[in-house]
Amino acid sequence: MGVYLNNAATSWPKPRVVAESMANFILKAGANLARGSSSCRDIKTLDMVTDCRANIASLFGGYCDHDPRYVTFTSNVTEALNLVIKGFLRPGMTVLTSSMEHNAVMRPLRHLERDGVNLVVVQCDEKGYMHEEIFEDELKKHMPDLVVLNHASNVCGTLQDLKALCRICRDKGVPIVVDAAQTAGHIPISVSENDIAALCFTGHKGLLGPQGIGGVVWRPDFADRVMPLIEGGTGSFSHEEIQPKRLPDKFEAGTPNLPGIAGLQAALLWADNEGRDKLAEKLNELGERLLKGLMHIDEVILYGPMNMADRLPVFALNVKGIDNAKLALDLDERWGIETRPGLHCAPRAHMTLGTFPEGALRVSIGPFNTNDDIDVLLDALSTLVRESRG
Amino acid sequence: MGVYLNNAATSWPKPRVVAESMANFILKAGANLARGSSSCRDIKTLDMVTDCRANIASLFGGYCDHDPRYVTFTSNVTEALNLVIKGFLRPGMTVLTSSMEHNAVMRPLRHLERDGVNLVVVQCDEKGYMHEEIFEDELKKHMPDLVVLNHASNVCGTLQDLKALCRICRDKGVPIVVDAAQTAGHIPISVSENDIAALCFTGHKGLLGPQGIGGVVWRPDFADRVMPLIEGGTGSFSHEEIQPKRLPDKFEAGTPNLPGIAGLQAALLWADNEGRDKLAEKLNELGERLLKGLMHIDEVILYGPMNMADRLPVFALNVKGIDNAKLALDLDERWGIETRPGLHCAPRAHMTLGTFPEGALRVSIGPFNTNDDIDVLLDALSTLVRESRG
Repeated sequence: MGVYLNNAATSWPKPRVVAESMANFILKAGANLARGSSSCRDIKTLDMVTDCRANIASLFGGYCDHDPRYVTFTSNVTEALNLVIKGFLRPGMTVLTSSMEHNAVMRPLRHLERDGVNLVVVQCDEKGYMHEEIFEDELKKHMPDLVVLNHASNVCGTLQDLKALCRICRDKGVPIVVDAAQTAGHIPISVSENDIAALCFTGHKGLLGPQGIGGVVWRPDFADRVMPLIEGGTGSFSHEEIQPKRLPDKFEAGTPNLPGIAGLQAALLWADNEGRDKLAEKLNELGERLLKGLMHIDEVILYGPMNMADRLPVFALNVKGIDNAKLALDLDERWGIETRPGLHCAPRAHMTLGTFPEGALRVSIGPFNTNDDIDVLLDALSTLVRESRG
Repeated sequence: MGVYLNNAATSWPKPRVVAESMANFILKAGANLARGSSSCRDIKTLDMVTDCRANIASLFGGYCDHDPRYVTFTSNVTEALNLVIKGFLRPGMTVLTSSMEHNAVMRPLRHLERDGVNLVVVQCDEKGYMHEEIFEDELKKHMPDLVVLNHASNVCGTLQDLKALCRICRDKGVPIVVDAAQTAGHIPISVSENDIAALCFTGHKGLLGPQGIGGVVWRPDFADRVMPLIEGGTGSFSHEEIQPKRLPDKFEAGTPNLPGIAGLQAALLWADNEGRDKLAEKLNELGERLLKGLMHIDEVILYGPMNMADRLPVFALNVKGIDNAKLALDLDERWGIETRPGLHCAPRAHMTLGTFPEGALRVSIGPFNTNDDIDVLLDALSTLVRESRG
C-alpha cells in the first residue's frame, strides 16, 4: 500500500460515503433536475441539489442568511474562476492580482489582457506572502475594477491574510474574487463577513468530494454584474430565448452533474459529522511533524512560511543536487510515495519563490494521512540525500 | 414501480455498471489526470480517460483514424455547444440555424446577436423538418460563416436528413456544428464521412452514462479556429501563462470529471456488448407500438412525423381539452408514469409546431422500457380522454 501525499491535486482517499452516494444516485434516484413532471423522484433530485447548495452557503457564510440561490455549481474551480473573471471584466477595465496565482487565474487574465483589459500583477515576497501595505498601495495606485487573489498557494501552501486584504478592498469599494481551491474545507471562510464578491471553490480537494464539481458563492449585487459563461436550457423561463437573470438559473444552463452533487453533499455531511475543527487540527499536526522533519534534513530547501500558522500542509521543496522530477520518480518507485514535481500549473508562483523553471517537489497532506506516512517520507528523503552524497 | 418515459431529459435506469464504475473510480482508483508523479495510479487514470476518448472517437467516426485527441470532454452538451459557438463566432460573422433548436443553441446565439453576430433562423415545416431546398437557398442567400443544427428535435423527435444537410454545407464550404443531444448513442453518425466541423454530444441520454459529462468531436482544422471557453491549468506547458493550442489540452482546463468519464466509459462498453443495433431496433419497435397506439386515440394530437423512419421515439402530444401540465400530473399521480410537459427549453420549436405558448406533453422512450410500459401509457391516456368527455 502506497503513501499518498498529493492531496493538493485531489484528496485521496475520499470518504466511502462519497462513492456510495454517487452510486445510489445513479441506481436508485436518477431523475433530472427541473426537467420532468414534478414526480416524487424529480422532487427528490431538487431537494438534494438545494440541500447541497444550502450546505455550501452555510459552510462559507453565504449572503442573505445563507440563501442557497447564491451558490452556483460548476465542474471545477477553474470553470468557476473563468465564469467570474470573463463574465465581469470588459476591455478598458483594470484587474489586480498577485504573483502567486495558479494558471486558472493567470491564463484567463492573460487572455483578457490581449483583449484590452489592464492587468496588474502585484509581487508577493519570496515566501509567497502578499504584504498588506504593498497591496493597499497598488490598489490606491491602480484603482482596479476587480481584485482576484488566492487564499493559499497551491505550490507552497502560503496562506494570505484574507481578512486584511478583504478589508482593504471593501474600504476602496473594489470587489474581490477569492480562489479558495486549496483552502475550501480546510480553513473557515465567511464570504459575508469579509464582503467577498465571489468565492470560487472546488469539491474534490479540501471538501473531499468527487472530481467534476465545484462552484461559486456570490455576493448578490456582484452576481448581477456578471454575464453567464454558459447559456442554454435551465428548465425555467422556457418561453424565452435569453438566459434568465434569476439565480441559480442564470449561471447553470444544461443538466448539472447530479451524481457529482450527490457525492459532494455526502462529503459535506461526512466532514460535519467528523468535525471540521478536528480534521483541521489533524492536518495541522501532520503538517507540523513534516515541517519539523524537513527542517532537520540539511540538503532540503523548503519554500514558503516556516510555521504552520501561516500555511497549509502543502509543502514545496527541493533537494540539493537532485532534480525534483527524479525525486518524485524515486519516491514513487522505491517507497510508493505519490507527490507532484514540476511547476504545478503556476509558473509565476515559482518565479516568485525563485524555483522557475525547474520547479519543486510538492508534498501535500490530507486528513487520511498518518504519522507513519510522514515518517516514511522523511526517511525516504534522508535516504535519497545520503545516497546523493555518494 | 413507476413507468419512466422521460428519457429525452435523461436516460433511466442506467446500466448498473455505470454506478459501479463511478464508485470503483472513487474507491479504488481516484488519481487525478496528469497532475501527479506518473505513479501507476496516475497512469491508470490517463489510460481510462484516453480509452474513453478513443471509444467516443470511434463511435462517431472521428477524424485522423479516430484520433482520441480530437475528443473534448465537457460537463454536458450545453457547455459543448457554448464552447463551439462562442469560441468561433465574432461580431460581423453570420450564423445560420433552424427554428427547431433547443435553447442550448438559441440562447448563446441570441446573446451573440446582441453583440453583433448576424443570426439567420431558417424555418422548418410544421412537423419540424428542415427541407433541403429551403436550407440550400438560405445558405446561398446568406453565405454564413457557420451552421448550427440539431440532428433530431428534443421536442417531437423529428430527425433531419443530416447527410443531405452536411453535403450542402460541404459544397458551400460552410462548417456545420451538429447538436446530437438526442441522437448520440441512438442513431449512427460519422463526423468524418459527413465533414462535420464539430459534433456536440451529452453522455447521459442516448449514451446511457451519468449526468455531468458530454463533449465535442472536432474536425482538426475547425478546432484550430475555436477559442477555448475555459482556460487554466492543463497539467501541461506549465511554464506558460497562455492556454496551450494542443488538443486535448486546449479545451480542457482544470481537473476533469473523472468519475463521470469512468461512468461514460462503462456505459459505452455496456452498449457495445449489448449491441447498438439491437438497442436501436428495440427503441424503434417500442416507438412503433406507441405511435400506432396514439394514432388510435381520437383526441390525441400528435406532432412530428407519423412514421418511425423519420423520427426518434420522442413524442410530443396534446389531448384536446386537457392542459398538458395537468395531463403530466395525472399520469404521474394515478399511474406513476413520468413524462415532461411544457416547452422543453425549446420555445421556437414549439412555435414551429404550433404549440406555443401552451407546449405539449413529451413522452420519450429508452432502451429499458417494455411493451407493458407503452400499454400502460396508452391505457392511461384513453382513460383520461374518456373521463374528460364526461
